[in-house]
Amino acid sequence: MTVRIFITGGTFDKSYDEITGKLDFEDTHIHEMLQLGRCRLPVEIRTLMMVDSLEMTDADRQLILQNCKSAAEERIVVTHGTDTMTDTARVLGEAGLAKTIVLTGAMVPYAFGSSDGLFNLGSALSFAQALPPGVYVAMNGRCFAWDDVVKNRELGIFEPRRG
Amino acid sequence: MTVRIFITGGTFDKSYDEITGKLDFEDTHIHEMLQLGRCRLPVEIRTLMMVDSLEMTDADRQLILQNCKSAAEERIVVTHGTDTMTDTARVLGEAGLAKTIVLTGAMVPYAFGSSDGLFNLGSALSFAQALPPGVYVAMNGRCFAWDDVVKNRELGIFEPRRG
Amino acid sequence: MTVRIFITGGTFDKSYDEITGKLDFEDTHIHEMLQLGRCRLPVEIRTLMMVDSLEMTDADRQLILQNCKSAAEERIVVTHGTDTMTDTARVLGEAGLAKTIVLTGAMVPYAFGSSDGLFNLGSALSFAQALPPGVYVAMNGRCFAWDDVVKNRELGIFEPRRG
Amino acid sequence: MTVRIFITGGTFDKSYDEITGKLDFEDTHIHEMLQLGRCRLPVEIRTLMMVDSLEMTDADRQLILQNCKSAAEERIVVTHGTDTMTDTARVLGEAGLAKTIVLTGAMVPYAFGSSDGLFNLGSALSFAQALPPGVYVAMNGRCFAWDDVVKNRELGIFEPRRG
Repeated sequence: MTVRIFITGGTFDKSYDEITGKLDFEDTHIHEMLQLGRCRLPVEIRTLMMVDSLEMTDADRQLILQNCKSAAEERIVVTHGTDTMTDTARVLGEAGLAKTIVLTGAMVPYAFGSSDGLFNLGSALSFAQALPPGVYVAMNGRCFAWDDVVKNRELGIFEPRRG
Repeated sequence: MTVRIFITGGTFDKSYDEITGKLDFEDTHIHEMLQLGRCRLPVEIRTLMMVDSLEMTDADRQLILQNCKSAAEERIVVTHGTDTMTDTARVLGEAGLAKTIVLTGAMVPYAFGSSDGLFNLGSALSFAQALPPGVYVAMNGRCFAWDDVVKNRELGIFEPRRG
Repeated sequence: MTVRIFITGGTFDKSYDEITGKLDFEDTHIHEMLQLGRCRLPVEIRTLMMVDSLEMTDADRQLILQNCKSAAEERIVVTHGTDTMTDTARVLGEAGLAKTIVLTGAMVPYAFGSSDGLFNLGSALSFAQALPPGVYVAMNGRCFAWDDVVKNRELGIFEPRRG
Repeated sequence: MTVRIFITGGTFDKSYDEITGKLDFEDTHIHEMLQLGRCRLPVEIRTLMMVDSLEMTDADRQLILQNCKSAAEERIVVTHGTDTMTDTARVLGEAGLAKTIVLTGAMVPYAFGSSDGLFNLGSALSFAQALPPGVYVAMNGRCFAWDDVVKNRELGIFEPRRG
């Protein structure tokens, strides 16, 4: 089983620019994360974009959807900024593809020692292998269906929709 | 859903003793790993032993089995040294409990910056939630049924049984 | 010999805010850095301010100077943002105190795994003990007199004044 | 000013062997440590041996002494295991070379996230630049003359000789 990984940016991949003193995007950290996890699962990686998810457009989401559709793999992980992760999950979910698609990200950039990114990546790759077709958000040890998840912005956590 | 975590030691939890200059066991690192992963999944943790898995006895394995049986939870992760992880998986697997039990560990101690432990823990907690009852070994992004896995000691990886 | 450490903020102490996704200042990291370095040197620590050095005012610099003057210790380390470190060094240097004062900082926040902060802190505390009275900038293994140092902003390094 | 760095092994450079589960020596970590510290100080590095200092022989110490003598540089840092660091310091000190030689090491391997190595390296390179000719031990923020230092093995710290 090969899992497809699509990179879109987000906190996960933010880097610290030593010259400007700001956070920005350079290359994805996914390769060194997989190396650190000594990942033995066959994966195919493609960077679709490298953006803060607050700046992700409808066209960007369509691009992600098209790539999920046309991918040869039936199991897909999408790394994504947390702020609009549930919006993209909805676009993918409503398309009703016969694939297992898991969105994940990080609350703290991987480049920080204190990142949850490696934990989340291990989790997302596992849910992608084990769950039936559908679209899911996997963050911080939990997994939510695309139509039953919101980000609680005050607490910085994902949780099921209320009532 | 609450996942039970049983700690048994292994590379996962080896510490460096500054006075003796040797690796040994102090407390488990599981709590700080779950904190680093910002784990939002309810878990119950119990340390059953803290041993190098090469020194694990039949009695130790029976103790793990009894704890899996008597646990209130139906989804269980067991942290374990890699050297005899498949032996313990066999003992648990042959018992045929109606629970999902996932054994995991690390090739490098968590206390090392270069550990695969956090990745494996995220993975094991996810497989434990998503897989049907059975006993599994989850290492480095892959998951194996207890009766179809061996550790390749030269390469330091887990792989399916041949032929 | 006790070394006084004055904290003023800077990249050294920037933290990542998980809720806003921005870098800001919370508490100083100096205590955990000294603990990580297993520092056995007696130190007295005082936080004077916690600011980006681009926002440091003349009044702020006078406050730092007054604290250097009134400190009981004759050996002082000042942690400081790199952008205006040489400006503060000049204010302190022109005052001509009979003390050894070493300014240091970091190109990358300590909270990032890839920070030079711990290296620079070890260096600054050592120069502060070994050098004669004067004001110095210690960054990335080198030490400069306050009147012979500039920050090369394109390269992100400190170097001697030209010609 | 160029500083010569001689590598001899010690805790500083211990690695974790994933296959055997033991600590051993592979390559030195000095290059990545200097890179992490963004060291701008010109250095020349040579590995003389890669041993646990408990196994260092008189012949090994003579080799270190000969290399200090014949080095073109007048400022030298020697990385060394902590157990017999003061013994080697004595051999170098009694030779009375007109050079500044600073021995340093680590209580915890650099490969561990919790190592004091980077702090000590920054410190040793600074003392080596700032101190007059002599032989010194620089550990954990302090610097001792070769004839006034012992390792307290119970506490795992270096301190001045008593009485």
